[in-house]
Amino acid sequence: MSLRVSNQRVLVDLGPRSYAIEIGEGLLASFCHLLQAARPNWFLAGKVPSALVVTDAGVPARYAELVVAQWVEAGGRAALAIQPQGETAKSLGEIEKLYDQLIGLTADRHTVVIAVGGGVVGDAAGFAAATYARGISFVQVPTTLLAAVDSSVGGKVGVNHRLAKNMIGAFHQPAAVVIDLALLQSLPEREYRAGLAEVVKYGVILDGDFFRFLEANQAAICKRESAALVAVVKRSCELKGLVVEKDEFETSGLRACLNYGHTFGHAIEAIAGYGEILHGEGVAIGMMCAARLAQRLGKIDQSLVDRQHALLTTMGLPTELPATLASQQETLLERMRLDKKSVDGQLRLILPVRLGEVESFGGIPLDAVRGVLSSSDTAS
Amino acid sequence: MSLRVSNQRVLVDLGPRSYAIEIGEGLLASFCHLLQAARPNWFLAGKVPSALVVTDAGVPARYAELVVAQWVEAGGRAALAIQPQGETAKSLGEIEKLYDQLIGLTADRHTVVIAVGGGVVGDAAGFAAATYARGISFVQVPTTLLAAVDSSVGGKVGVNHRLAKNMIGAFHQPAAVVIDLALLQSLPEREYRAGLAEVVKYGVILDGDFFRFLEANQAAICKRESAALVAVVKRSCELKGLVVEKDEFETSGLRACLNYGHTFGHAIEAIAGYGEILHGEGVAIGMMCAARLAQRLGKIDQSLVDRQHALLTTMGLPTELPATLASQQETLLERMRLDKKSVDGQLRLILPVRLGEVESFGGIPLDAVRGVLSSSDTAS
Repeated sequence: MSLRVSNQRVLVDLGPRSYAIEIGEGLLASFCHLLQAARPNWFLAGKVPSALVVTDAGVPARYAELVVAQWVEAGGRAALAIQPQGETAKSLGEIEKLYDQLIGLTADRHTVVIAVGGGVVGDAAGFAAATYARGISFVQVPTTLLAAVDSSVGGKVGVNHRLAKNMIGAFHQPAAVVIDLALLQSLPEREYRAGLAEVVKYGVILDGDFFRFLEANQAAICKRESAALVAVVKRSCELKGLVVEKDEFETSGLRACLNYGHTFGHAIEAIAGYGEILHGEGVAIGMMCAARLAQRLGKIDQSLVDRQHALLTTMGLPTELPATLASQQETLLERMRLDKKSVDGQLRLILPVRLGEVESFGGIPLDAVRGVLSSSDTAS
Repeated sequence: MSLRVSNQRVLVDLGPRSYAIEIGEGLLASFCHLLQAARPNWFLAGKVPSALVVTDAGVPARYAELVVAQWVEAGGRAALAIQPQGETAKSLGEIEKLYDQLIGLTADRHTVVIAVGGGVVGDAAGFAAATYARGISFVQVPTTLLAAVDSSVGGKVGVNHRLAKNMIGAFHQPAAVVIDLALLQSLPEREYRAGLAEVVKYGVILDGDFFRFLEANQAAICKRESAALVAVVKRSCELKGLVVEKDEFETSGLRACLNYGHTFGHAIEAIAGYGEILHGEGVAIGMMCAARLAQRLGKIDQSLVDRQHALLTTMGLPTELPATLASQQETLLERMRLDKKSVDGQLRLILPVRLGEVESFGGIPLDAVRGVLSSSDTAS
């Protein structure tokens, strides 16, 4: 194991559901070793539980195979489940196949589900873990930047309803998150950049200093330089962990700040067709819509809109609605009203009020929303 | 509303998930009034959330209709979902239909799911509520004795895997339980008696005095006399609530005591074909298997086996394996090993050690289990 940067650990303090996020280069090779420190009772001689390792067809097979091999070497039975690539894995039909594999493994309450993949794999495998035998342990091994900085932390798991993304789900915290930064080096450029949208989000919503760090280090970040990467992933996980600690079940409203750009983004993804626009790309465009809306409503001035626009652009992210969608305002609006944050069909959106701070606003005039959906190009 | 017995309230103290169980005759007519006391924020003028009232084809339609009418009168939108009767309702396919109705209702995080029916309706509607938008409120209105004394309290919700009953599920506490004893008067005799199996269970596992109360009042209980019924339901709910308070998520092992007779019972139900043997009947036979096993293993003496046998018989419950199943020992055993309490395929069973007390035993010799599965008739 050659470490160019020192390993980092972020703790998420949730009482009995606390866990560590391990961050470093080459961690996958010592996966069971790392877990053993965090969950020693899983590795008692002769008592290693069975494990279902879930990945998808788009993830290099050797990652999940390496986990299976280590698990078996540690003394546990392990099976591999390979889901289809893309959002189709987040359906009840695919979850049933995971249940079948768990039953085939004679899985019990001690069985561990290990998700090796991006956000889709983590959400689907996590939902299977949340609902099998009323909840079994699971571990996240994110293989994309998006999963590393966002979806693998915080316990949101679930699948899509055909009319509403992520509508079926649960809160089920992982027992551990292992982020091997080396895996991120081989990501396609577009996918890596999509993950940076969530990173920029943390700066805008929670941490002006982090936003300035991103502005100052954008070249190193885009080149995936180790020191920059570890700093970006660690701070993102810390920020997300802090929010989740304060509002694990999204009851106080605080956690909703993480949805900045997402109500727009989800609608954009859905109407464009999942896969046409990556989640991070939808979020980037959605953050621009939200920032422009905030500016129109007098919450922020144009300079913040411009800084966010400049940083996203430097990161290689889209900032404008595709032309095909700009003509579908009403379809987008209708989809936004199905968002889980909506109450009785009333739109509720997270909007910036200054760099590093957002608030939740209800009763937003639909015409103002239409405005940023139709003419985003001219507004920034 | 004519009340022959005074209304009773049992509180289940689970911190932020605490709730009241309201018990009385004719409570359905004042359903919203009762809820208003427990959940005043649901009934703020102009802010009443939408509700999905779930029932099944075997429950008199007027019960659910009465709830819908009251909800609408209180100012909320309400839709009615009628599931097919029986265990088929506890499938992911049927849950998807509930999701569809929730989407059709533009349900949001404040929407309330109200289950009006027996255990199957409560489990299925509760699972939909647990997983829609990562968990929305639900209310249990049990219409069977079994649901009133057992499944409506404690938050276990879920559906069946085709190979394992209740294998897919969650812990999701109701916001309130409303038990109208008048509904129990019209239950078919066989169904009412099946519910008494769980009542007898509470006496055996937790409360010798309650067991003696049941022995002394069996005639009044079988005749469904109001005073006896309210005492039986209240004490059962109290006992279940106490166990759930101490072990909400079934982690300490205490809650497993409620499964007395159930590992046998579930296997018996499954192999006989769901519906052939009612759940309570399976539990009654299962409790006899467990008691006989405990006696064979020297945990209890024959007199307790005989007292349990006598009480179940007086209640009109079966105590012996049907002849068709007695020849299927290995099939039953195999099914028992799929039980959620099993660890790595090792049987773990709840067995009585004296009247009012049970313990969990692992590593039980399979031959002893085979013994009570093959010759239950001669053993008591």
